[in-house]
Amino acid sequence: MNALLKEIRHNPLLWLLVFVPAVFGAHALEPEAHTLLFALSVFAIVPLAALLSHATESVAAKTGDAIGGLLNATLGNLTELVIALTALSAGQYVLVKASIAGAIVTNTLFMLGASFLLGGLKYHTQEYNRINARFQAGLLFLATIALLVPSAVTEADSAPAAAFTQQLSVGLSVLLIVGYGLGLLFSLKTHREVFASADSGESHETPWPMGLALAVLVGVTVLVALTSEIFVESVQQAALDLGMSQAFVGFIVVALVGGAAEMASAFSGARKNRLDLSVGIALGSAAQIALFVAPVLVLISYVIGPTPMNLQFWPGAVVMMFFATLTAALCTNSGRATWFVGVLVLMVYTIFAMTLYLLPPRVQ
Amino acid sequence: MNALLKEIRHNPLLWLLVFVPAVFGAHALEPEAHTLLFALSVFAIVPLAALLSHATESVAAKTGDAIGGLLNATLGNLTELVIALTALSAGQYVLVKASIAGAIVTNTLFMLGASFLLGGLKYHTQEYNRINARFQAGLLFLATIALLVPSAVTEADSAPAAAFTQQLSVGLSVLLIVGYGLGLLFSLKTHREVFASADSGESHETPWPMGLALAVLVGVTVLVALTSEIFVESVQQAALDLGMSQAFVGFIVVALVGGAAEMASAFSGARKNRLDLSVGIALGSAAQIALFVAPVLVLISYVIGPTPMNLQFWPGAVVMMFFATLTAALCTNSGRATWFVGVLVLMVYTIFAMTLYLLPPRVQ
Amino acid sequence: MNALLKEIRHNPLLWLLVFVPAVFGAHALEPEAHTLLFALSVFAIVPLAALLSHATESVAAKTGDAIGGLLNATLGNLTELVIALTALSAGQYVLVKASIAGAIVTNTLFMLGASFLLGGLKYHTQEYNRINARFQAGLLFLATIALLVPSAVTEADSAPAAAFTQQLSVGLSVLLIVGYGLGLLFSLKTHREVFASADSGESHETPWPMGLALAVLVGVTVLVALTSEIFVESVQQAALDLGMSQAFVGFIVVALVGGAAEMASAFSGARKNRLDLSVGIALGSAAQIALFVAPVLVLISYVIGPTPMNLQFWPGAVVMMFFATLTAALCTNSGRATWFVGVLVLMVYTIFAMTLYLLPPRVQ
Repeated sequence: MNALLKEIRHNPLLWLLVFVPAVFGAHALEPEAHTLLFALSVFAIVPLAALLSHATESVAAKTGDAIGGLLNATLGNLTELVIALTALSAGQYVLVKASIAGAIVTNTLFMLGASFLLGGLKYHTQEYNRINARFQAGLLFLATIALLVPSAVTEADSAPAAAFTQQLSVGLSVLLIVGYGLGLLFSLKTHREVFASADSGESHETPWPMGLALAVLVGVTVLVALTSEIFVESVQQAALDLGMSQAFVGFIVVALVGGAAEMASAFSGARKNRLDLSVGIALGSAAQIALFVAPVLVLISYVIGPTPMNLQFWPGAVVMMFFATLTAALCTNSGRATWFVGVLVLMVYTIFAMTLYLLPPRVQ
Repeated sequence: MNALLKEIRHNPLLWLLVFVPAVFGAHALEPEAHTLLFALSVFAIVPLAALLSHATESVAAKTGDAIGGLLNATLGNLTELVIALTALSAGQYVLVKASIAGAIVTNTLFMLGASFLLGGLKYHTQEYNRINARFQAGLLFLATIALLVPSAVTEADSAPAAAFTQQLSVGLSVLLIVGYGLGLLFSLKTHREVFASADSGESHETPWPMGLALAVLVGVTVLVALTSEIFVESVQQAALDLGMSQAFVGFIVVALVGGAAEMASAFSGARKNRLDLSVGIALGSAAQIALFVAPVLVLISYVIGPTPMNLQFWPGAVVMMFFATLTAALCTNSGRATWFVGVLVLMVYTIFAMTLYLLPPRVQ
Repeated sequence: MNALLKEIRHNPLLWLLVFVPAVFGAHALEPEAHTLLFALSVFAIVPLAALLSHATESVAAKTGDAIGGLLNATLGNLTELVIALTALSAGQYVLVKASIAGAIVTNTLFMLGASFLLGGLKYHTQEYNRINARFQAGLLFLATIALLVPSAVTEADSAPAAAFTQQLSVGLSVLLIVGYGLGLLFSLKTHREVFASADSGESHETPWPMGLALAVLVGVTVLVALTSEIFVESVQQAALDLGMSQAFVGFIVVALVGGAAEMASAFSGARKNRLDLSVGIALGSAAQIALFVAPVLVLISYVIGPTPMNLQFWPGAVVMMFFATLTAALCTNSGRATWFVGVLVLMVYTIFAMTLYLLPPRVQ
């Protein structure tokens, strides 16, 4: 417990934890103040995500390389998963899908681009292990094809058969999870050595003791779930009040909130000239959402959702995911980065954000 | 003749030749047993394709480098050409196009991916001459643009002018054949030396004497043509009976059948750590179908088809060809392969196959 | 003045200047002879563009590296800009957009491909600084996404909100100009050294004295503007008379005319084994049009056009720009060129030109 308090004292991000009781209090007193609840829940989720991330890494550090890698790989986006599960059980599939697509695009473009820019402002040229970048980009490319081809194939058809879409979504989900599992086998086991420099960087924070880590993991997950509920309830009305399209909120706001903790790590890595770490977090996290979180949500929707969810995304989201992946693949191809590469990647993100922001509400 | 019998004794694939008389017998006795005829003709074409392939290589080996290369390059996909010609003269343009697109996708993804996987299970990392891979990927890229742009340009138009499509198809066909010819000039003549390591691997089977090779070439081509006729007649009804969409049959089944002989060579090359050979066969064969077989079929359709055939493919097929080419280009860029690269490529293929398998019959 | 006359005597391209008085004379005598005026104005613009280009370089050479680079970067496509401004003030937005898209595609494919081919016919293999190529391809990639995403996002919508398109166009225009400015900062200032070999080649013509250069710059710009007016007036009717679609004229003819002077430099560089120069001109010019000329036209249209122009291009043009950029990115990735790479790139261009030429008039 002491370790936890010490951590909170030294990490300004965690001071935002004060918003956790605030959001619950406000919800009890003013359940209709949507914009306020939306803002409070956003600020509350950021420090909770940071705690979750630290707890996961602590458990992983204690359990040895293979299991630890597996834990990091499955729980690394626990926050995004919990938010999405909450939205799923509320039947808000548009929000779930927007937040999945947004998390992929935001991690691939904003987190990567800002890391390049921040690092590049300090160092003339930075180098990193491009093998890991290529590996993650390959996984993302696979996921993009999985999301794109079904839409492309049924596009011509006026009324795509719902049964077809649903069967295909289940099949693709299983395929992506298998692909993700084999990717872990490849990177953690059979070809571990080529990923060496990228992995060694993870353990830069003092791990917590096992008991504390597990307690935080369980307790904070519950808090995230409760906060997400308020967030999901309020987001739609708040978006209307703030004049933002729902697509913008799901794609940009939720994704930035859910990924804030990881961004802090990625940016600090870039400033310390450890771009391996930044690239690994950015692309690794995007790949995890695309190949693990999204398909798991589809499969879980059969149990908890009002109706099953499919993997068919809004065409605009698919186009953005495709270009985000292509941008990441082309930019990380050389294993070098300068500030201008960061600018280019951030500008692609800005194009997407601007388009979504200006989008008339009825178009989703 | 002795050489032929010896070959048959030592090559288990050729034992399938027993299906050749079987399919003719069955067709004479039960002309309406579509599913049986379909299965028998599939099994009969596989060993015939292997014989054709060996005969072509034998003739090529005797005629010296330049003419031999040319022969291999034009007759290498004789089986696919004969099947497509049979379907063409029966006016089954949907099947012709599906089998062309399917052969490109299957060679690019399944043959390449399985070679990487099979090789990678035996060797930790494999290297190959990436110049040849880039060259073939470049040809494929050109063909993909030739098939994609006309569709993209007329997409907005409600009723694409048939005359426009037909004129453009002839123009593009001539262009692709010229491109293919210049590619042969480049790889066999002006810049032969950079392709050296890739080519040297072809002569791993004892070539037959010229007389036998020519006799087999002519005789087996006739047998393939006769078997194809039964195959083309039965495939549509069999697909219905087996519950497979026609797109799946044309794209996946025909392509796997037509390419079985080449796959055997590619896989055996990969297991012997001669990935140059495997990559060369997979991408070279795909490029040959896209830049030679397909445009030749369009031009021939003016002579033998009921009406001229155009180069406008079903949008889903174009999307698959584009992604197959992009996957091959990105994966062969580094000149190295591991088992996981094979898994990724095979998974892209599985996504396509799964989509086509589940596709409701009315969508083509 | 002597320097100018000497230049004209030694440069056969400038003998075409005789067409400048010819077009004005013809316009005064036969204002309805559209096809004649169209042809005369085309031939008149080519030598004027060459003079403009030399004048810009002369001014740039006198003003030192940084300002000179900036001048070259902003005035390098002055001809295209003046033609487009004339069409803009005449409210011919379809022609403006076609000529922008055409200039990008023509520079990226025709100028690059022909340089590779011409150089490759003389030298077995040519090498060049691929850093500059990657940089320019990156800028082009950004511009392509900026033009593509808005169309893709609103595609599903039956009646895209005009206000949305207009706001987005202004936002994207500002973004692209900022991106272009930061790119200049990167290539001319912070990372100048990596572009070294590409830049050194520019000063191969004797610069004119400052006074002459400025006088030519102003005088010839006026002549180009006057000629463009006749060109823009006559092009539509002439296209009809010559049986060419308007898309073909804007895309191919205008682009070849506007870029003739730069092509002469690029091709001469390739024949002298200075491919750095050719690649720099081809891709640099395309990037300049995409990130500077096009957005400036959108912003200027608020002042001089009858109604504001947006950045939404005809889908076929967007597809062509995307594939032109992808082709350039893939082809220049290795930093080496042979004649066959040139053939491949030229064939992609031929596919586009053929499609546009055969396109029925009503489809644009």
